[in-house]
Amino acid sequence: MSFVTVNPDSDFPIQNLPYGVFSTADNPQPRIGVAIGDQILDLQAVKHFFDGPVLKNVQNVFDQPTLNAFMGLGRAAWSEARQTLQKILSKSESMLRDNAELRARALVPQSLATMHLPANIGDYTDFYSSKNHAYNVGCMFRDPKTALNPNWTQLPVGYHGRSSSVVVSGTPVRRPNGQLKPDETNPPIHGTCRLFDFELEMGFFTGPATQLGDPITMDRAEDHIFGMVLLNDWSARDIQKWEYVPLGPFLAKNMGTSISPWVVTMDALQPFLTDNIPQDPVPLPYLQDKGNYNFDIKLDVSIMADGLTKPSTITRSNFKHMYWTMKQQLVHHTATGCNINPGDLMGSGTISGPTPDTYGSMLELCWKGTKTVELGNGITRKFLQDGDEVIFHGYCEGNGHRVGFGTCSGKVLPAHPLS
Amino acid sequence: MSFVTVNPDSDFPIQNLPYGVFSTADNPQPRIGVAIGDQILDLQAVKHFFDGPVLKNVQNVFDQPTLNAFMGLGRAAWSEARQTLQKILSKSESMLRDNAELRARALVPQSLATMHLPANIGDYTDFYSSKNHAYNVGCMFRDPKTALNPNWTQLPVGYHGRSSSVVVSGTPVRRPNGQLKPDETNPPIHGTCRLFDFELEMGFFTGPATQLGDPITMDRAEDHIFGMVLLNDWSARDIQKWEYVPLGPFLAKNMGTSISPWVVTMDALQPFLTDNIPQDPVPLPYLQDKGNYNFDIKLDVSIMADGLTKPSTITRSNFKHMYWTMKQQLVHHTATGCNINPGDLMGSGTISGPTPDTYGSMLELCWKGTKTVELGNGITRKFLQDGDEVIFHGYCEGNGHRVGFGTCSGKVLPAHPLS
Repeated sequence: MSFVTVNPDSDFPIQNLPYGVFSTADNPQPRIGVAIGDQILDLQAVKHFFDGPVLKNVQNVFDQPTLNAFMGLGRAAWSEARQTLQKILSKSESMLRDNAELRARALVPQSLATMHLPANIGDYTDFYSSKNHAYNVGCMFRDPKTALNPNWTQLPVGYHGRSSSVVVSGTPVRRPNGQLKPDETNPPIHGTCRLFDFELEMGFFTGPATQLGDPITMDRAEDHIFGMVLLNDWSARDIQKWEYVPLGPFLAKNMGTSISPWVVTMDALQPFLTDNIPQDPVPLPYLQDKGNYNFDIKLDVSIMADGLTKPSTITRSNFKHMYWTMKQQLVHHTATGCNINPGDLMGSGTISGPTPDTYGSMLELCWKGTKTVELGNGITRKFLQDGDEVIFHGYCEGNGHRVGFGTCSGKVLPAHPLS
Repeated sequence: MSFVTVNPDSDFPIQNLPYGVFSTADNPQPRIGVAIGDQILDLQAVKHFFDGPVLKNVQNVFDQPTLNAFMGLGRAAWSEARQTLQKILSKSESMLRDNAELRARALVPQSLATMHLPANIGDYTDFYSSKNHAYNVGCMFRDPKTALNPNWTQLPVGYHGRSSSVVVSGTPVRRPNGQLKPDETNPPIHGTCRLFDFELEMGFFTGPATQLGDPITMDRAEDHIFGMVLLNDWSARDIQKWEYVPLGPFLAKNMGTSISPWVVTMDALQPFLTDNIPQDPVPLPYLQDKGNYNFDIKLDVSIMADGLTKPSTITRSNFKHMYWTMKQQLVHHTATGCNINPGDLMGSGTISGPTPDTYGSMLELCWKGTKTVELGNGITRKFLQDGDEVIFHGYCEGNGHRVGFGTCSGKVLPAHPLS
């Protein structure tokens, strides 16, 4: 228990302690904090408490405007930091509890903070690792018999994304214009995206850097996975359809990718480890893992739209529907010797469950425009409309507490006029 | 003319003045320099000369370990810097010529310098904009009638690449292991890439940042193109073949991308502007440009292999074979509102000419393994072998001088043993 009050429905009890980067009106310098209840513990203000053997000489990682340096220190540092944080915030420890002056400086209400991207994201990769999602998309655009490409069950299919357009939750995202081919028989046009969509994903941030040429093997993969966020891979379906053969999605994805601001560590998620999905065929040896690395993380998506009094939940999924694990993704990504840096972001791909009420995109929920999605008050959607705010939640249910991710939200701005 | 001696066959006369980042044994701090003849002008040592209206208050951009800040200043700054450099180095100006102490500090022999990446590359994008190359690949893997996908002549096809694995010329690149399917009828294997290849490309670095949501229109595109380098998009053809449907090349490309260290500015390339390739069909209005933005840059590739006494030239191409211009690439890339940052790198795609002696990859030169490429001394190749050093040259021919790119080279290291 912490001396900081934490409501039972808070995402941020002392069992969680996610890291983020924030600033305040009176101190606009972005700095590292940890969420506790409805407060933020400013790590710059308490860095002197991190006096364990690993961190005592590198406390300056908590002076940085991003988490990259801390992410780069590795698991021993992450673990020691967590122990120190639990001590600092503990009800039974006086170091912060009884120091009113320090408390006043070090605890900042979340309501007064502006959140920033947690890391300088050097590279962003997006996978495609939910079998239900890949199957659904394959059914829509090919047919059920050939829905999954032959490589899909052999390797975690993924592609390099655009890191410059990753934004923190709350940043509006503008509906794109682009090249489309609405009519199969006519030439393409330069027009406004009509099929704008979200994709319910999660992402993980990488830890210590590797050298170019050196793969990360399965037994070392966990050493390089720092923690997770919610991720919305905004997608322009009509742009994607026309552009993506043969080199993959490009402009359909690069107008924005939103992530939640708090990075929940793998240590905090450990209690929610659950069975991997059985893989058939058995993966090649380099992708085989002895243990589980799947997590029971409840996810939901709601839309706040004009005409609604509160956001309407349109789907409930779970991270545990992932077919390929994050360790498998990372091992595969680096199998060729691709190097990683601290703060690289790797997205899961759309996380769809097995039933229609668990699908992770409008494309699937409206089944390519053949169904409507009910928001209540007689309001329906197929794809997103201007002004819609898309809100992701994610949390694990503990014993009397929850380890949550907060929200990942973004509002759709209308497209710029076509010039 | 410069007071620094420049041989007639040098890539770096006073008409060129490319920017790079270097360090020396006695000063291991990476810093910005300009190539002149066989010397480097250390801009940190002469930054006080940049006293024009645009640069006088931002001379500290020349104290940085990368070119990003300078790239971000924009064309007025780039132009003023070029004028100042031409003055500093001019035979008729005494400021540096007659200051022996400063000359000793500011001019560093290239032979004593270690070159580094010129910029911190936030995002790397690779296009596919040579029609000959796209056609050749289409013929090999489909057939001549459907060689080009329908979108190819409508938009500059491209994809997001991996920026962490971009390395500077001279860095060896390791042959990757990865997932392959050498036998169509059997399951894939984890094996060593057998079809390792280069791709002869050039790349451009971007200038000032844009805001997410705001496209760069054609009339502003030049403001965001800083300069060009040679680029080798190392490719594992067998990995690519199995992985790339439907999301594009991923591990086949992320084991390394080499670039030449000197960034030749668009001002230096201006005299070598040549006609654009006629585009049929006429592109959509947002991709139309009134003027030319194609450049006559001679390119060649040689291989130094065991058994040769000197590198053997295997192909001669030219940047002018590009179908889509860099301006069109940049406008298309940002049409959806994708933002750019100073120092983003955009590759051209393999630059193949119309005839077999101008093809830009082993894949095309050996026509998918059906021909051999002669290196001399009875040595032949289809794809690259371990120990092969691949060397790109590029230069424009001026009137009695050349504006060159130096070299982009890399040696193939043997794959790690399969675990």
